[in-house]
Amino acid sequence: MTATPIILLVEPQLVENIGMTARAMMNCGLGALRIVDPRDPWPLHDELQARMLAASSGADEVLHKAEIFPTVEAAIADLNYVYATTSRSHDMVNHIMTPRAAIPDMAGRIAGGQKVGVMFGRERTGLVNDYIVLANAKITIPLNPEFASLNLAQAVLLIGYEWYQSKDATPEKQLHTGHSRPATREEYLNFYQRLESELEDGGFFVSADMRPTMSRSLQNMLQRAEMTEQEIRTWHGVISALTGIPKRKKASGE
Amino acid sequence: MTATPIILLVEPQLVENIGMTARAMMNCGLGALRIVDPRDPWPLHDELQARMLAASSGADEVLHKAEIFPTVEAAIADLNYVYATTSRSHDMVNHIMTPRAAIPDMAGRIAGGQKVGVMFGRERTGLVNDYIVLANAKITIPLNPEFASLNLAQAVLLIGYEWYQSKDATPEKQLHTGHSRPATREEYLNFYQRLESELEDGGFFVSADMRPTMSRSLQNMLQRAEMTEQEIRTWHGVISALTGIPKRKKASGE
Repeated sequence: MTATPIILLVEPQLVENIGMTARAMMNCGLGALRIVDPRDPWPLHDELQARMLAASSGADEVLHKAEIFPTVEAAIADLNYVYATTSRSHDMVNHIMTPRAAIPDMAGRIAGGQKVGVMFGRERTGLVNDYIVLANAKITIPLNPEFASLNLAQAVLLIGYEWYQSKDATPEKQLHTGHSRPATREEYLNFYQRLESELEDGGFFVSADMRPTMSRSLQNMLQRAEMTEQEIRTWHGVISALTGIPKRKKASGE
Repeated sequence: MTATPIILLVEPQLVENIGMTARAMMNCGLGALRIVDPRDPWPLHDELQARMLAASSGADEVLHKAEIFPTVEAAIADLNYVYATTSRSHDMVNHIMTPRAAIPDMAGRIAGGQKVGVMFGRERTGLVNDYIVLANAKITIPLNPEFASLNLAQAVLLIGYEWYQSKDATPEKQLHTGHSRPATREEYLNFYQRLESELEDGGFFVSADMRPTMSRSLQNMLQRAEMTEQEIRTWHGVISALTGIPKRKKASGE
């Protein structure tokens, strides 16, 4: 297993938020959770445990492996580099990074063998200055300054999301072609030539002057559709059906 | 107000998720919410309304302006381009984008005067194929394939987050210097020269051979700290205090 940043929840107040944090972590491939001085004593009694697990939507694995610490100092003692997340600006002198900038920094440290943690403060108040000063750098997520307060699990999600994106190789944009493959230029051209010929027969091109323009317009639209080989065949069928209508009528009528 | 993508929740089942979606939207500067055929009839009765507002943590504005539609077709009728979010791969032929790729596409369309919407399906099941086919493109958020199911509001948050980042000009990394400013090279050098001189007096440099190495090591560490002018002054005070200790002792002892 590759090393990942360790998520530290400092003094979380609601077990639901711990559960939702575990879910967000697992969504993003993060497995290491440390909880500092949670409001409800650990191990949780049955009802709280059930509420936490329900909120985690199946991310039990993260919760079962979670480590509990009495203080921030104890929780970060073995770490080499700690980021504090905060939505507020402080008077303290510190590096402030966006999540997008923090992730390569984090990834570089982890690749270099460092143990790295990201601290999240308690609901409503966030991290107090006494804890922020224990961190090496601060992460502030750029959000609507008039409404910047994030739910705890959502803050964790955004950091985890950026982490996952940095590791992920999904192409930014792709044409999903199902069981088929993108059509070739020849398949396009054959189809278009047949369409044009049928349109010719149907009297579509009323003006010879306008014909090149109309032809280009039809072709452009077809190119933009980025059809698959299967779709080209389907549209051949469409033309057959449309041009066949009078024939069928004739056949049944006569 | 600049135009933003419209968020469409299709058949949401839980009012809490509608509230949390409004919060996530407001976090990201998104104001336009359309709700298609919610499980609970609209307007909500008092208790459900209260639960939704509580979950929104103050994003009432988005909820009060939300529009309700009976069908997806009605909800998207006036839009020019619609993205469907889905975590699953379908057999359908479609463009699939990551959120990061979809945002510039979205922003370009909006800048060009298009009305753009992003559809999110109901909890657990997501968008059914009949709704996906009404969209122009699909967005799939790259996440842990073994645990990809996101809470509804979290899916909205990730799209909104990418939207906000694309508009936001926060420097990726900055040194927040509080009420001071970064120290100048001269301030550094003066400080270091004083430190070196005091260390000389204190017999710190035991070996002349090692002195250049030790000197560089001290200077390197000080450079990395990126001190402010205020901090340089504070550390001058530290040296004074440390070197002053024997004097003070002497003064009180004699």
